[in-house]
Amino acid sequence: MQLTRAADYGVRVMVHLASCPQGARVSLADLAEAAEASPSFLSKILQQLVKSGMVTSHRGKHGGFSLVPRDPSPTLLEIITALDGLPPLNDCLKTDDACHRKTWCGVHLVWVEAQQKLRAVLAAASLDSLVRSTASRRAVLGLD
Amino acid sequence: MQLTRAADYGVRVMVHLASCPQGARVSLADLAEAAEASPSFLSKILQQLVKSGMVTSHRGKHGGFSLVPRDPSPTLLEIITALDGLPPLNDCLKTDDACHRKTWCGVHLVWVEAQQKLRAVLAAASLDSLVRSTASRRAVLGLD
Repeated sequence: MQLTRAADYGVRVMVHLASCPQGARVSLADLAEAAEASPSFLSKILQQLVKSGMVTSHRGKHGGFSLVPRDPSPTLLEIITALDGLPPLNDCLKTDDACHRKTWCGVHLVWVEAQQKLRAVLAAASLDSLVRSTASRRAVLGLD
Repeated sequence: MQLTRAADYGVRVMVHLASCPQGARVSLADLAEAAEASPSFLSKILQQLVKSGMVTSHRGKHGGFSLVPRDPSPTLLEIITALDGLPPLNDCLKTDDACHRKTWCGVHLVWVEAQQKLRAVLAAASLDSLVRSTASRRAVLGLD
């Protein structure tokens, strides 16, 4: 269930875009700096975010990437799902026929519950709340 | 945060041993059959369980493996920790200095909460409860 680096950087990009004024176009170079990722790696992640409809890519001199406004804002779970997704906690959670023991295995029920609790936390975190939380923590530290 | 195969099989072994009469010695071959794992792979997992003090290895003609009785019984989290552990949901949760953004990153707090919720579910599941749940599910299906 470990998050991929792509998903982690994708979330960083989304939080950065959402903290910019609405409609702002941010260059790949600036996004790479904000996410602390290489532009080439980030480029692929941005393609996935554009494909998901959460980010728009603008060409030309004043091009760049902008967040597609949405109310309510996407959740952390939606963003991760648009990227590499959240790997299951255990193989038996992968597909319906991933493990023939699941019909009677008492442990399977615990894996299911643990994964549901984890997903619920990510589904409760909106992009807007992540931006607010980040801004407030940075303000406390006197950053920006 | 995906569980290793070793941890998954280790849990199967523990549930099987705990479902046997107290003090019963189970052979490697029988444990391998119960866990649906190869004896050679299971052998390494059993070494880890013996090292953790949860399982005893008996040599000789009437040898085998037995569960070390414990009240309360170990939790699923303890069993997994004794094996390969639970990989962190994200790299920033690995060590204190794993990510310099954690002091201000709003997303980090969500990863922390998600991981805590997941661990709490595993810590609430005792080995005894897993045995009861498995037995009850098997009974409903008319197995055994």
